[in-house]
Amino acid sequence: MRNVYLDYSATTPVKEEVLKEMIPYFTEKFGNPSSLYDKGLESKDAITVAREQVASLINAKPNEIFFTAGGTESDNWAVFGVADKLRDKGNHIITTKIEHHAMLHSCEFLEKSGFEVTYLDIDETGRINVNELVAAIKPETILISIMMVNNEIGTVQPIKEAAAIAKAHNILFHTDAVQALGNVAIDVKDMGIDLMSMSSHKIYGPKGSGALYIRKGVRISNYLHGGGQESKKRAGTENLPGIVGFGKAAELSKINFDKHVKHCSELRDYLKDRILNEIPDTYVNGTLEDRHPGNLNITFKFIEGESILLLLNQFGINVSTGSACSSTSLNPSHVLSALGVPVEMIHGTIRFTVGDFTTKEDIDYVMEKLTTIVTRLRELSPVNAAKGW
Amino acid sequence: MRNVYLDYSATTPVKEEVLKEMIPYFTEKFGNPSSLYDKGLESKDAITVAREQVASLINAKPNEIFFTAGGTESDNWAVFGVADKLRDKGNHIITTKIEHHAMLHSCEFLEKSGFEVTYLDIDETGRINVNELVAAIKPETILISIMMVNNEIGTVQPIKEAAAIAKAHNILFHTDAVQALGNVAIDVKDMGIDLMSMSSHKIYGPKGSGALYIRKGVRISNYLHGGGQESKKRAGTENLPGIVGFGKAAELSKINFDKHVKHCSELRDYLKDRILNEIPDTYVNGTLEDRHPGNLNITFKFIEGESILLLLNQFGINVSTGSACSSTSLNPSHVLSALGVPVEMIHGTIRFTVGDFTTKEDIDYVMEKLTTIVTRLRELSPVNAAKGW
Repeated sequence: MRNVYLDYSATTPVKEEVLKEMIPYFTEKFGNPSSLYDKGLESKDAITVAREQVASLINAKPNEIFFTAGGTESDNWAVFGVADKLRDKGNHIITTKIEHHAMLHSCEFLEKSGFEVTYLDIDETGRINVNELVAAIKPETILISIMMVNNEIGTVQPIKEAAAIAKAHNILFHTDAVQALGNVAIDVKDMGIDLMSMSSHKIYGPKGSGALYIRKGVRISNYLHGGGQESKKRAGTENLPGIVGFGKAAELSKINFDKHVKHCSELRDYLKDRILNEIPDTYVNGTLEDRHPGNLNITFKFIEGESILLLLNQFGINVSTGSACSSTSLNPSHVLSALGVPVEMIHGTIRFTVGDFTTKEDIDYVMEKLTTIVTRLRELSPVNAAKGW
Repeated sequence: MRNVYLDYSATTPVKEEVLKEMIPYFTEKFGNPSSLYDKGLESKDAITVAREQVASLINAKPNEIFFTAGGTESDNWAVFGVADKLRDKGNHIITTKIEHHAMLHSCEFLEKSGFEVTYLDIDETGRINVNELVAAIKPETILISIMMVNNEIGTVQPIKEAAAIAKAHNILFHTDAVQALGNVAIDVKDMGIDLMSMSSHKIYGPKGSGALYIRKGVRISNYLHGGGQESKKRAGTENLPGIVGFGKAAELSKINFDKHVKHCSELRDYLKDRILNEIPDTYVNGTLEDRHPGNLNITFKFIEGESILLLLNQFGINVSTGSACSSTSLNPSHVLSALGVPVEMIHGTIRFTVGDFTTKEDIDYVMEKLTTIVTRLRELSPVNAAKGW
């Protein structure tokens, strides 16, 4: 059966060039990067190269990149590291209602120990209002954290403006760029970012690998304590093949950036146009301007997204109803709720995310199946029956 | 040039069978384990298998295994997770002076926020005294953490007795089993362990992968907050290939256990006998009874271990002066200090650790070079010159 993977925001396959680069570091060049002999130095050198590759993708300096086990650890480190370091300065954090749970649950944990968190609303396009950000600032505010690109609706936040506001108030600015990396242009210097979370497995690198960008001069507490790895800031034997893979993926992402964005946005728009034109009662959630190039979040009125997902799966098509990380939760998406989408519409929502290996034929195949599935589900729907459909 | 790797306690190569098992999960079976379609379920199933494999190696139930990014994260989770959960019950932790820095630095961090930590001494064999453990217990003690096998001198601690003491006092018992796993028999039920840290890359699995055993019924706070992975206890997209590799390595470790222990201890003893017989003024640190089968920690009097390391490296031989994680620190080993080894002797110490790929010919080659190197260094040594050598 044909397999059409349209869930690139959940995770991406590792590209062959990336895996090829990683392989020697499992069995041959396996030395501990902290070891003082050649076999260790060889590993250390490989990490240095990867650090340069990741730094180059976001216009950082290599010594501002700290490798972690992924986006979640990076988010946790940023929040808890700032909270611990600046506890004496203040206990207030500003973030948004549409952050990833790695940020929201970390903030909730802090709220249990005396921190206060303001969760900013978003408007109907999916963006925060910078005036509301300014209004939320207090003398006790120590951190503003706003995700660069939302994982469900793909909308891009006004990061440069938000970072400038933070800077003007002498507040640290963090952004979760897990979905942004490789999909929107990131220049941490130009954007004025202090801390930024990244993940490898969203840019065709391996899972279990990520990084936190910490601008030179920014001091935060460590989160994983132990050995002297990562300039004594993040302990634990380095995930050598994972780091090498992340580096290679970052290098490829930089080289292929324009092509990737064009390819994804064209196919995403093709899918969007066909759905909106060919399937009635469908709506796009979030603005289409300034959006993740591969993201399409669509509400199919009167039916359940999960049913669509499961039926598409029978035809080898992979999509999601929200983010993969919350797939087992029965709660309606906090992102769509914040966007003002009514609960019954949220339940009829599907996220399609296209990527480098998606083809026009894939989209045509999806449309063929999707049209049939939606029609069939609507025929079965009690909502429709009541409406006389 | 011949390469003789005698630093298996720093890290091990990934076995070919393990890598072979991992490969499909990078490029083909790459689905996010949280995704609801077949490609996600396939990944979830692979994690289930790995969980059973790891559980089986230590006689745990699969639902007591929580995958992490490695031993350091597991240690941090255990300490901070207990400290946060039981903060209202007490603020006292008992550990030892010879723990890995992942434990010691975590404890030091807690000491800055109102916790009190007792660091137990070790005797001349390298073991704690259980009477001292009992004497250290206070009404406020919430955690006893004692590493199963030391990473520098390989001595095995009386875990079963220590765990029984903890249980009798209604205190949680954690052990860092990073060096123990696969090298000494572990039965968490029989030993009465509540929490146990494990790492994949010490048992011929990949780096960046580990686990925390949490006995059913034990409640500790989460450490990485975010998505609902690992039964909502450890957030972050699972390191799928890393987990699959850890599982396979655990399976192989269980199958090959007796052979591995015999092979390592025979070669280790052969190396020990030759060094002690053929090179004068050499001493083994720590008892040879009840020790990591591959570990040999030797002091070469009158010379610097680092010089030995660097000269051996020129002949393709890899050894370490202490643990890899502290290689960049100039401080003398805290483990050998606790053992009562004088500072000048600590500086003359080398850790040799043999493993599954070590051969008798490797040891013969090492002896040939080592004898020459030690003789040469001692001729150059000002200590010897002063003594009229």
